[in-house]
This record gives sequence, structure tokens and C-alpha cells, in this order.
Amino acid sequence: MTKLWQKGYSVHSLVEHYEAGQNSKLDMRLIRHDVWGSLAHAAMLRSIEVLTADEHEALKAALCEILQLEATNEFIIQPTDEDVHTSVENYLTAKTGSIGKKIHTARSRNDQILVDTRLYAKENLHLVARKLFALCDALLTFAQKTMDIPMPGYTHMRRAMLSSVGLWAASFAEALLDDEQLLSTAYAISDQSPLGSAAGYGVPLPIDRQLVSDLLGFSRVQNNVIYVQSSRGKIEAAIVQALTQIMLDLSKLAQDMLLFTTAEYGFFQVSQEVCTGSSIMPQKRNLDVMELVRARAQTMLALQQQILGIISGLPSGYNMDYQETKRPFIEALDLVQESLDICTLVVNNLQVNTDATDRAYELTTSTNMPFRDAYRIIGAEVLAQLDRNVPFPVEGQEQLVNRLKARNHLGGAGNPGLAQAHQRLEQAKQPWLEQATAFKTAIQQLVGTQNYMQED
Amino acid sequence: MTKLWQKGYSVHSLVEHYEAGQNSKLDMRLIRHDVWGSLAHAAMLRSIEVLTADEHEALKAALCEILQLEATNEFIIQPTDEDVHTSVENYLTAKTGSIGKKIHTARSRNDQILVDTRLYAKENLHLVARKLFALCDALLTFAQKTMDIPMPGYTHMRRAMLSSVGLWAASFAEALLDDEQLLSTAYAISDQSPLGSAAGYGVPLPIDRQLVSDLLGFSRVQNNVIYVQSSRGKIEAAIVQALTQIMLDLSKLAQDMLLFTTAEYGFFQVSQEVCTGSSIMPQKRNLDVMELVRARAQTMLALQQQILGIISGLPSGYNMDYQETKRPFIEALDLVQESLDICTLVVNNLQVNTDATDRAYELTTSTNMPFRDAYRIIGAEVLAQLDRNVPFPVEGQEQLVNRLKARNHLGGAGNPGLAQAHQRLEQAKQPWLEQATAFKTAIQQLVGTQNYMQED
Amino acid sequence: MTKLWQKGYSVHSLVEHYEAGQNSKLDMRLIRHDVWGSLAHAAMLRSIEVLTADEHEALKAALCEILQLEATNEFIIQPTDEDVHTSVENYLTAKTGSIGKKIHTARSRNDQILVDTRLYAKENLHLVARKLFALCDALLTFAQKTMDIPMPGYTHMRRAMLSSVGLWAASFAEALLDDEQLLSTAYAISDQSPLGSAAGYGVPLPIDRQLVSDLLGFSRVQNNVIYVQSSRGKIEAAIVQALTQIMLDLSKLAQDMLLFTTAEYGFFQVSQEVCTGSSIMPQKRNLDVMELVRARAQTMLALQQQILGIISGLPSGYNMDYQETKRPFIEALDLVQESLDICTLVVNNLQVNTDATDRAYELTTSTNMPFRDAYRIIGAEVLAQLDRNVPFPVEGQEQLVNRLKARNHLGGAGNPGLAQAHQRLEQAKQPWLEQATAFKTAIQQLVGTQNYMQED
Amino acid sequence: MTKLWQKGYSVHSLVEHYEAGQNSKLDMRLIRHDVWGSLAHAAMLRSIEVLTADEHEALKAALCEILQLEATNEFIIQPTDEDVHTSVENYLTAKTGSIGKKIHTARSRNDQILVDTRLYAKENLHLVARKLFALCDALLTFAQKTMDIPMPGYTHMRRAMLSSVGLWAASFAEALLDDEQLLSTAYAISDQSPLGSAAGYGVPLPIDRQLVSDLLGFSRVQNNVIYVQSSRGKIEAAIVQALTQIMLDLSKLAQDMLLFTTAEYGFFQVSQEVCTGSSIMPQKRNLDVMELVRARAQTMLALQQQILGIISGLPSGYNMDYQETKRPFIEALDLVQESLDICTLVVNNLQVNTDATDRAYELTTSTNMPFRDAYRIIGAEVLAQLDRNVPFPVEGQEQLVNRLKARNHLGGAGNPGLAQAHQRLEQAKQPWLEQATAFKTAIQQLVGTQNYMQED
Repeated sequence: MTKLWQKGYSVHSLVEHYEAGQNSKLDMRLIRHDVWGSLAHAAMLRSIEVLTADEHEALKAALCEILQLEATNEFIIQPTDEDVHTSVENYLTAKTGSIGKKIHTARSRNDQILVDTRLYAKENLHLVARKLFALCDALLTFAQKTMDIPMPGYTHMRRAMLSSVGLWAASFAEALLDDEQLLSTAYAISDQSPLGSAAGYGVPLPIDRQLVSDLLGFSRVQNNVIYVQSSRGKIEAAIVQALTQIMLDLSKLAQDMLLFTTAEYGFFQVSQEVCTGSSIMPQKRNLDVMELVRARAQTMLALQQQILGIISGLPSGYNMDYQETKRPFIEALDLVQESLDICTLVVNNLQVNTDATDRAYELTTSTNMPFRDAYRIIGAEVLAQLDRNVPFPVEGQEQLVNRLKARNHLGGAGNPGLAQAHQRLEQAKQPWLEQATAFKTAIQQLVGTQNYMQED
Repeated sequence: MTKLWQKGYSVHSLVEHYEAGQNSKLDMRLIRHDVWGSLAHAAMLRSIEVLTADEHEALKAALCEILQLEATNEFIIQPTDEDVHTSVENYLTAKTGSIGKKIHTARSRNDQILVDTRLYAKENLHLVARKLFALCDALLTFAQKTMDIPMPGYTHMRRAMLSSVGLWAASFAEALLDDEQLLSTAYAISDQSPLGSAAGYGVPLPIDRQLVSDLLGFSRVQNNVIYVQSSRGKIEAAIVQALTQIMLDLSKLAQDMLLFTTAEYGFFQVSQEVCTGSSIMPQKRNLDVMELVRARAQTMLALQQQILGIISGLPSGYNMDYQETKRPFIEALDLVQESLDICTLVVNNLQVNTDATDRAYELTTSTNMPFRDAYRIIGAEVLAQLDRNVPFPVEGQEQLVNRLKARNHLGGAGNPGLAQAHQRLEQAKQPWLEQATAFKTAIQQLVGTQNYMQED
Repeated sequence: MTKLWQKGYSVHSLVEHYEAGQNSKLDMRLIRHDVWGSLAHAAMLRSIEVLTADEHEALKAALCEILQLEATNEFIIQPTDEDVHTSVENYLTAKTGSIGKKIHTARSRNDQILVDTRLYAKENLHLVARKLFALCDALLTFAQKTMDIPMPGYTHMRRAMLSSVGLWAASFAEALLDDEQLLSTAYAISDQSPLGSAAGYGVPLPIDRQLVSDLLGFSRVQNNVIYVQSSRGKIEAAIVQALTQIMLDLSKLAQDMLLFTTAEYGFFQVSQEVCTGSSIMPQKRNLDVMELVRARAQTMLALQQQILGIISGLPSGYNMDYQETKRPFIEALDLVQESLDICTLVVNNLQVNTDATDRAYELTTSTNMPFRDAYRIIGAEVLAQLDRNVPFPVEGQEQLVNRLKARNHLGGAGNPGLAQAHQRLEQAKQPWLEQATAFKTAIQQLVGTQNYMQED
Repeated sequence: MTKLWQKGYSVHSLVEHYEAGQNSKLDMRLIRHDVWGSLAHAAMLRSIEVLTADEHEALKAALCEILQLEATNEFIIQPTDEDVHTSVENYLTAKTGSIGKKIHTARSRNDQILVDTRLYAKENLHLVARKLFALCDALLTFAQKTMDIPMPGYTHMRRAMLSSVGLWAASFAEALLDDEQLLSTAYAISDQSPLGSAAGYGVPLPIDRQLVSDLLGFSRVQNNVIYVQSSRGKIEAAIVQALTQIMLDLSKLAQDMLLFTTAEYGFFQVSQEVCTGSSIMPQKRNLDVMELVRARAQTMLALQQQILGIISGLPSGYNMDYQETKRPFIEALDLVQESLDICTLVVNNLQVNTDATDRAYELTTSTNMPFRDAYRIIGAEVLAQLDRNVPFPVEGQEQLVNRLKARNHLGGAGNPGLAQAHQRLEQAKQPWLEQATAFKTAIQQLVGTQNYMQED
């Protein structure tokens, strides 16, 4: 197919291959968003009378055809098309002839990829938030059921203090709620309309950037056109930094799960359906997914590093380097969503082995220590006593729970503040729901019929 | 001196050395904050009658002595003291005898370092914000003066379009204003009181965590005590992620400065006082500081990587690994402040060589291209013409400015939206001022006399 | 298809999806190597009489069928097969019935992926070395042609000293020759046979690990079976660290190319066939591939970070995390090969614009400086003179070359040591050729007919 | 004091502060090496008669005075001196008058810092190698004592197979021996003399680069003068990449130690003198140093990232950015040495709790599995049996050891190949000893009296 910049000379095949990379495959993710951007741009060109009413109608019809094809996976970007913008333009030209070329007035591919990426980000961040909230719900539900189950608290990977299973579980929900704040700001920074920057220096035409922004449901125009280009990669990085925080929390959850389900700890069991086996050791129940979550937190860190590294030290103005940020960005959004789903699934399949948690805790008790807590701690002398088989006063389940309850200050094991956490969770959900509705409404009005947005 | 955990056996000197690291030196930065935390904790212990009124007064007096010593750099943490907490406790014990030990009731050093770090973060983030705003002011002032000076806009590091010096300068201010949003959220996450977590599992005493939080000027209590410990490093990472974004913007500014002050580009000159020379090449005027800003953006990336790497994969509960996050955190806050100052200084010492910007732009003009802008672009044929010395119609300064002005859509070269940027800047400053006042007021009330907070 | 560890219960689809990742696609790269490993393992099992001669023949025939299918891209790993090992075993079982199961005696999939990866590494490192040498050849050839062309040498991105185009080009060849030493050691560490570790703790069977190692052309057995597992990821990291060094050199080459082909510098031109255009600016000749090389050096850094991050802090023994190192490893090897090819292509299409290099150099000359070189340096006073149009004594091409020649100490512009560099290059090639031959011969003997190794 | 490049104008104090960084403090580490470089350079200048015999003697005497002062920590680089080169030159000028300036002929500070860094690298890499070998010795000695002690082998952090303590310990020695190969190549790349590059483009004087190289004990001259500058940071990175591999091995050792010394595993005990206590939990014996080793492996990764990040994308020629690589390089060398020492100390203080290893292993035994090993693996049914208190046939110590011995293939638990590992270790030591001797001899001859090299 014709490429937008083609001028009659042929490019070396190595160069073509090196530049194509996985572009056409990645851009399959951006078809919808590219069409939305084009619909808004066309409407604006109509409003400043660059397009006639008929031309606008023709373009709009053809663009909506693409949305329909995409909804059934029938719109394919050929490797020879290079990118989604070319693919869409070729379709428009095939359908509308020279009108298809006019839509390129007052914009460039730099503009288009920016708007595509922002819309993709907004759509996906809503999914991330929803899955994050689902995991919080699962953790708090589990915490509610297990807040009275004693469990040793660890420091330096040694049993140290009395804690509870519920306190442990709820700690991750609160971590994720802090992440939500980071995610929310990353969303806010993504929620500005880049269109009108063209190649980064604006155009000598009276374009209406605010109209395009409103039509696409952005909260504001990103003002300075040079900054529009400079923010490529930067905004992706801001998002991935927030995702990294989420993945690190999941990594801690995974590490705890892996330890607490070992034969040595034995605190938890996980249903068979979330485990896998081993070819040579058929009976073993491995929590492979948690190992992968742990590993993929590192993958996320590397994706963050990749984007930040690519944009560091670049001079102002569009640089081709930016294209290399697209893949890590899309992968990061996939990765976090899949990992959140997996963790929710595992939490929902988690059972406490109360024998093990009790037994472990009892091993940590002793008698006459200076601080009221310290005597519950294992140490050299205690171990020595254990080795000499000196019996310890073993507490019953009831006594343990009473001692848990005694830690009744805010956030303590006897008062883990689950109600407060629930309330914070519900408050956090609200603005996301409102923004999702606003976004959906804008797109719906733009498209005219249905929104073709991704639902999970 | 006596260490808090000392129990009669001696530790191998290699181990002592390995653990000490640069701790006592780093902790010199945290004396003030450690004392503030102790003042609040003591007041709370008094409120639940763990301390008598006399004990409280004695402790308060001794703690204020430390603040006075610190204000004149006379409070020194000896390497043998291990950390600031030990050093302060030793001072209290020396002054008040056994009362000095009682302040350790219901808290642990894990608690203390958390509160010290949060207070240090808050204090320093205010300084970062102030310096960021100062740079924005400098950039917008410069932009105002230079918004009518034409300059080539680059894509792919090639002259591409008509742009202006002011548009270029203002683009950095807008980038920094987006960073401010990230910084503000990082501040919000830091602004929760950790005290009361003790070793991470709370204490069986009716402590009043809300009171401590209010006394220290925190916006809220960090609820779940396990999450309090798990957030060590995590919150530092969130801050450093925001700082990384700032440094990347400065890195782009630095790269542009280095290019635009070369003999080849020659757009800008920088006053001698911000340049350095060279031993073997005495006449050369090097913009070394901009090279260092560029390099130190990478240092910031490494500091971010260090903190994120350290906390990744750690199980719940306090791990000694966290201690290793202190240094990169403190260094990151220093680094960003110094770099912001340097960039403000350089921007304030920047002069435009209008001959060079005009000449460069004129070289990019030609005649009969399809798009109204495209004919201003250099290309193979144009270069070939230049090589053949075919004369180009050279525009005068006035014509150029008129063409600039024609790009009068929002954010374009003829309408860079400096007023909007100024307004956004002023709005961004407001909440920081309010929070700074609230923080200062709280500390002042706690200390009773003066706040001993860092002013820049 | 049947999975090796399947035991009757079904795994949740989310878990399956999360674990599958891109495994079946990635493992398409490892078919050949998996079969080679199986051929050697089968031969060894025959030698210790675990397999009968007939069983061995049947297995060998079926394995060679797979090689033939793979050579024509007809052996496909279905996503349902999970990995290459399962896919191969399923094929064997389909062809040979229960014999196909016996080949799994005394090994595990952990073993198999290790041997596959090592063989893949060896095969690909030979290709990397070949492409690295090709680039060195191109650079030295270019250097030979351009060693007498004067060009300014830069420090701090400012023109500083007299240099030559050839000296510049040859500097990259020498950098790559240092990289070759790193690559060679990474190869040596990869060149140890892991087979016999099984799940990481050996097997209670008298297996002959040396035989397997010899059959596969490894230089030695990797002794300790726990270390065999612990080296997963570690050896991949060692290789990627060497590749990172190569990419950083290419990144510097790319940055220089991008600068030196700007209108501002104008030293070089690159043939049209390695450039691309721009949709909105049809005449512009962009060196996009060099921007991508620069960006992909950062991608390589991220791949290095990913592998190192994943393996850091893992306890001994196989962990599923290791699986996550496969993709960055394979991508890193692809990336470096493609980038080396691109750079060779660009170097071969590079032309010097001698007018520009001369002119630039002349601008750096002046008169009465203390050091013999220093007076050739641009500085504030010089610039001031230029601005006042004070004429400088302009040297002719001949004088410039004479001055170049005066720097005739080893490695200087007048004596760039191209002969020495050539000699070093030829010496470096030799061991790679010998090792390639030995490797090929071993595989040929193992397979019996042809080696099916990748040629570029 | 006078700075080398000072020309009468004063630099803004912020700029001075930003540029100074920790330079004068860091350069205190390089005094010796800077003097050695100057001694060699002076001898060469004498050989080409730039210096008279008297001048040479005067310079040599003054330089040796500096060595004597440095040996007793009396040579201090003042912050106002900026760097070691200025400090040394100021000393020479104070002592010898204008002769002190002549030594700067035909070299630049870029040259000097390169040679200082290379010599520092060589000196320190010898220390790293020695400490690495000491840890290997400790591990193999421990392995020899414990090779018959059964212990469970883990996969997926679950007990999987029969293994031995000695096999586990020896696995780390073999990992370190692979690292030694990487270290050795990094040493080889450092072992080239940069002197004569001056500011990166050579000098128009007939300097004798080979002589300087020989005098300093380098194995060869680094030929191309542009590459000399381009290798700044690159060679440091190559070294730190090797150090990263070492730290990752220590990180795995640390993680294993931390797990195996928990109450849950309880396999190992560590002497009290390498542990520390806790303020609130006086009896707890924490292996803090191993937590720090784990954390500092991440610090090493960040230092690697820092150096690689700084040099990525820099154009050819000296850039001030390179200065920023000095600190991470010096810190990385310190960090690895201290960490190796700590690990050796811990290994030498490690005791096996055979009750725990036996008990753990026995829990993994069962009866009727298809593979000879598989029946030793814990799984769901086994755990179910354990829960129902069905007794397992418990093996005695003797039976266990017999089963260990049955894994007698190369590298297996019954044949861990300690003799081979020892032999490899001794072979690896040899070239380091020879190179150390050669280096020491060269420096001794250069200095004339004693070498002032660092011994550990």
C-alpha cells in the first residue's frame, strides 16, 4: 500500500524491517482510537469549513465502517501499511477518493499517535482501576473473615510479634489505595488533548483545538505545541511509574504467598485450580503464578526503565526514538491488568491453615521480658530452652484472640480499621465512575451510535 | 556509646562497619525531624498517662536543647551511636536519667525512622516545589521576552518548521507544571502519620495515633500498621519517581542548551559566570553544568532504580534492606533541588543570538510546496540548490514575525498561551503555600518557640 | 494436547493464560536446539542401556523428522502444547508410542530449557560476532578512505582540536574489538553443558554427563547440579551485558551520525535508500534508523535490567521466575544483530561532505596561543572577532593535512594505527571461526546428515 | 588555590558547588595513581627531551614526596583545588616553580583521570579477585565438611528432592568461578594505557606512548586516541557489570541464608558475633548483614545502571558527563569488596543444625511413585496424609547418606566434584598472582623505592 511519506525512491529492506518492528501488530490495538481522533478532527475541519458538509459526511461514514470492521476483528493493518494512520487513510482514500487525503490537513502522524495513545491510556486506566478495586474488595473480604485469626508477625524474616491474618491481608488493600492516588494523577496528566500540535509547531490555520478536545472527552487542551511533542513518552512514563508501584505491591503479596504456602510455614493453602504440577514431581502443588507475578514486577521495572531511558537526553521536537516507547507502554498496561486479575483469583482461593498459624505463634511465646510485647518474641535463649525441651505455657485460641483484641488502637490487630478502608475504597471508586461515564458519553456522541469501547 | 539493642556480646568489626555504612552521616540530616517525632510521641504518652507531667516537661526541655544544638550544628551523631534515634536517646538519658528510656515505650526505631523520613520528605518537597516554581517563573519571563523571535523548529534533529524562542522556553514551564501534579500526589502520600506501628504490628497499649498525627501536622493517620512498614521505600520511591520526571525535563532542557550554544547552531549565548574553561583550551566557554544536569538525570534514574529494586520482592514486615533506601532518597532530594537552581540560573543568564536564529530559519525557506508550511522545510533538493548557490527569497525580520503571528491557534507560535501558563502556575503555587503554613504552624506549636525548619 | 505435568484437574483459564505468555511463540525459536539436546540425551541413555538399540533408532528417526519439518517451518508449537519440550515429546509419543516417554528418563524440563538456551546462545553468538566483525570491516575500510580528511574534534560538544574523519571512524572499530573480548568470555561461560542436573539435584542413575557434553560440542560439563539451575538467567545476563556494551557503542555512533548529518554540522551525507521521509514534510531526509538505534540501546539496557532484576534475590533451586528471562534474552540477541546490520549498511552508505568538514575546521583556527594546539580552538574572543568580521588566515587543504600528519604518535590523527586495528580484527576472528567449526561438526555428527544450523 | 583552567573571571558559586560535587573527596582515592601517571609521563617527557634531566629529577622528587604524604594521609585535596590533578600540580608548582607547569605538556586532565582510573581499577580488581577466592575457599572448605549431610533440595520454593549441604555450598563457589572469568576479561580491558590521548585528539609532539604504557605496567597502549576518550565510562561499566554478577551470587547466598536460618527452616545457625539484636526485641538474633547484602546487590545494579545510563547516547569526544561515572565506579569497587568479606565471615561462622535438615528431608518421603526420585516429593496427597497423622517410614541417617551417595554422577550430591572445583580455583588464582607481581614490579621501578600499593 501507499505510505504517507512515499516519494518514489525505495528504501533498503533492512531499513524497512528495522523500522517496522512490531508496529503494525501493536497498532492493531489503536484502530478504534485512531478513528475517534479522526472523527473529532474531521468535525473540527468542518467547523472551520476546510471540509464541506458532504465531505464530512463521507469521511464520517467511512470512519464508522472501520469501527464496525474493527469490532469484529476484520480491520487488519498490513505490515506494508506501516502504521494505523496509513491504514486508516488508505481505507478512506479507497472509499472516498481525494476526500480521504483532505483529512490530513492541519495534522501530522505525530499528532495522531499522541491522541491515539492518550485515548488508549484513558480507556485502559479505567480497566486498571476497576481491577485494582476488585482486588481491594477481595482482600478486604478475606480480611473481614480472618481478622480474628492470630498469626506471627515477622521482622527480619523472623517471627517477632502477634499479628492476625486479616491485618496482613488488609495491609495490601491500603497499599493499593495509595497506588490508586498515583494512578489517578497519571490519568489526569493523560487527560489533555494533544491535537493541533501537528509536527510539533502548530499550523498556520485557524484550527479549533478546544472543540476537538471537547469532542473527544478530554478535560483540557494541552496548550504549548512544543510541549505536546515533548510529552510523548513522558506521560507514558508517568503512567508506567504508577503501574510499577502496583506491581511492587503484588510482588510483595506474591513473595508472602510463596513463603506462607511452603511446607515450612504452611499458613495458607490455595485451591488446586490456581496451581500447576511438575513433569517429574507429579504430586507437587506449585504456586507458579505467584512466581510469575514476582518476576513480572521486575519486567514492569524494566518497562519503566525502557521508556524513561529512551526519552532521557532527547532534544526538543519529535524524535523517532519516541516510537520505541509504544510497545513497553502497551505491554505494561496489559501486564498490570493480567497480574491484578491473577492476584484477585488467588486471594479468592486462599484458605487459612489455622493449625499452622496458631502453632507458629505459640512457638514465639515466653514469659518474663521487660517490655509488654517483647516476651512474645523468639530469641537465642528461647530457642535454647526449646532445644532443652523446657515446656512453655501454651495459650488457647481464645487467649490468643483476646491478646489480639488488646491491640485495639487505630490500625492495630484488634482494630484493623476495615470499615475505614472500605469507606476509602468506595470513595476512591466514585471519581473513576464519573470520568468513565463522561468519557463514554463523549465517544458515543462522536460516533453517533455505539461507543465500541473496551469492556472487560 | 550504648546502642539501643546492645546485650553484652560484641559484634564483629566487619559486621559493624558493613551495617554502619554512611548511617551516622546521613542521619545528621534527620535530627530535627527525629526530635519533632519524639516531642509528639512524648505528648501523646503524657495524654495516656504513661509519662507524668514532670517527666514530660523534662523530656521536652531536653529535646528542645537538641534542636538548639542542631540549629548551630553542634549536635553531632557519632559513628559509634549508629543512628539518630540512639544519639537522641543517649542525650535524653544523659540529661534526664531513666526518663530518657521511657520515651521508647510503645514505639520502635522502625517507627521512628518512618516518621523522620516523612517529615524530612514534607520539608524538602516544599523546597522542591518552590524551586520548581522559580524555574517556571524564569522560563515564562524569558518566554515573554522572546515570543516574537523566530527560530527553526526541529523534528528528527532536522530543521523543520517555523517556531519561536518563546514557544520553546514556555514548553518547559508546562512540562514542569505537569510534574508539579505528580509531586503534589507524592506529597499527599507522604503526608500520613506512621507513628504507632512500633515494629509493624502495633502495641498492646491504648495509644492515640490521631493525636500524634495532628501534633505533627500530618493530614491523616496511616491506618494499617503492617502497611506502615510495607510503605517504607514505597513512598520514597513514589517521591523519587516524581523527581525523575523533573530531572528528565531538565535533561531535555540541558540537551537543547548544549546544542543551541554550539558554534554550529549558535542560537544562544550564556553569561561567562555560569561557564567554565578548560586547562588545555583556555578560550573555550563550556556549559559544563548542562552536561552535568544531563548526566545527573541518569543518576536520578539510577536512584529510582535503586529504591525500587531494593523493595521489590521483599516479604511483609520490616526488613533491614529498607535502611539501604535512605541514602538514595536523601541524595535524590538534594540532586533535584540543586539541579533546579542551576537551570534557573542558566535560564536567567541566557541571551538569544537573533542573527543565528534568523539565519537558520531563512535557510529553511523555499517556494512552491503543497502545504502552506511545507515549503519552509529543508530537503535534498533544497540543499542541492543551496550547493548550486541558487538564491532564495530571504524574508525580513518583519515578515518572519508576521508568519509567526499567523499561527495564532491555542498553544501555537503566534499564541503561546503564556497568560494561561502563568495562571496555571499561580494556581499551582497556592496549595503548596497553604500546606507549608499548616505544617509550619503545627511544628511551631509542638516546639513551642521557633520551628527550626529549613528555609532556602 | 497432553501436558507433561497434567494430572486430571483443570487449571483456571486465567492461570493458563498468565503462564502461557508468549511461550509457545518463543519456543518456536528453540525447536532445533531441543531436538539436538534430545538426540544427545537419547544417545547417552542408549550408552547406559536405559534405551535398547531399537528404541534409540526409533527415537532418533522421529527426532530427525522434526528437524526436517522445522527446516521448512512445518513444525508448529500449538499454544495448547505449552512449550517446545511438550511439543517434541508429544510428537515422539505419536510416532513411537511409549518409547517417546522413556526419553524423559533422568532429565526434567528444567534441564532441557537450559540446554536449549545454551545451544541457542552459542549459535546466535556466532552470528553476533560475524556481524560485529562485518561492521569493524566497514568502519576500517571507511577509515582508510578518510584518514586524510580533516575534521574538527569535539570536547563538551564544542569544536576543540584538529582531528580526521578516519580517526573518528576507526575509534568505533576499536570499541567493538574490546566488546568482542567481552562477548568471547560470555560465549565461554555459555559453553558448558547443563544436562544431567534434572530438576537441579541430579538423578540416582549412572548417567554420563561428559558424553552428552561432548556429543553437543560443549567445551565442558557444568559440574555442580545446583549451580546448573542457579546459572539460569545468570548466563543469559552475562551475554546481554556484553550485548549492552555493543549497543552503547552503536548508540554513540548513531548520535554522532545524527549530529554530523544535520544542516548545522553537515559533515556527512547518507544515501537516500537508508533514509525515510515525512508525511507532512516530503523533502526531508531523515536518518530514522539511527534514531532507532539510539532508542534501542535503551531497550537493550532495559532487557539487561529485566534479566538481572528477575534473578536478583531468588533463592537456590529452580524458580518459575526464570521462565520470564527467556523472552528478553531472545529479543536481545535479535536486537543486536539487526542493529549491527543497520550500522554496517549506514557506514557503507556514508559520504563525507569535505566542504563542511574543512569549513568547520577553519572556523576553529586562530593565531597566538601558548600551546601548539590551543590556538586552533574557538573561544569567546574568537567568536567576537568573527562577529566583527575580522578575517582569519585560512589554511588550504594541503596545510591542514600536513598538520594532521604532524600528529604522528601512535593512535594520533597522523598515525591512526589502522594496520594494527586490522591485525587485531583478524586475530579476533580466528577463535570464533574455530569454535564455529567445532560446534558445527559436533552437531553434524549428532544429527548424522545436515546440521540445520542457522546461517545468516 | 589556582585552578588549571582559571582565566580571571569568577564562576557563580552555585555552579562551583554543582560541579564540585564530591570530587575532592573522591579524588583522595586517586592520589597515588595520579602521581604514578605523572612519574611515567615525566619520564617520557624526559626521553623526548621536553624536560631536562634536572627538571625531571626535581619533578620526580616532589612527586615522591606526595606519595610519602599520602601514605600517612597527610596529602589533602582541598575542595578549592577541584580535583587531584590540580592539587598535585599546585604542589609541584609550590615545590619546583615553573617546572611544575611543564609536566602538563602533551597531556590534559582528560588523559590524567583516565590513567588514574585504570590504575585504580587494576589495583582494586586484584583485591576483588583475592576476596572472591577467599570466599571460594571458605565455601569449598564448608562443602567438604558438609557433603554428607542430607538436606532437601527445593524447586518453586518447595521441598522437592534429596540434596546435601555440601552440594549447596559448593554451588556458590562454582558461580563465583564463572564470575572470575568475567572479572578477568574486565581486567584485561582495563589493562590498556590511555596516556597520550590528551583532550582526545592527540598532540603534535613526538610522544612515546609505548614507553609510558610499559613504565606503568600496562599490557598495551590503547591505540586510537578518540576511542581512548570514548572508553571513559565504558570500561568502568564493563567492570561494574562483572561486579554485578558477583553481587547477584551473593544476593542468592544471602536469600538462602535468611531462609535457612529462620525458625521455620532452621537448617543453619550463625555465630552471635555476626548477628545483631533489636531494640524492642532484645533476644532476637537477626542476620542483618545478609539482608544488607541482598539490598546492596540492588545498589550494585543501580550503580551499573547509572554508569551505563550516563554514557548512553553521548556523542564522541570528552563530555563532562563522564565525571559523573567516577563516584558509582569507586563505590561499586568498595561495595563488592566489603560484601565478599562479609560473606566469607558468615560462611566461616555457619553451623548446620542436622536435626532440622534431617527432619525436613524425612517429611518429604513417601512410597510408591513411578520415578525413583519422585516418591520423595511432597504433594497434596502427602500433605493430606500428614494431616491425618498417617505415619511415614522414617529413614535413619545412614540410609539417607546411602541414598545421597547413589547420586554419584558428575556434579551430583554423591559426587559433588569438590576436587575439580578446588583445582579450577587454584588455576584461576595463578594469572592474577602473575599480573599482580608484574604490576607491582612496574610501579616499584617507577617509584624507585616502595610501591605504596594498597594491600588488604
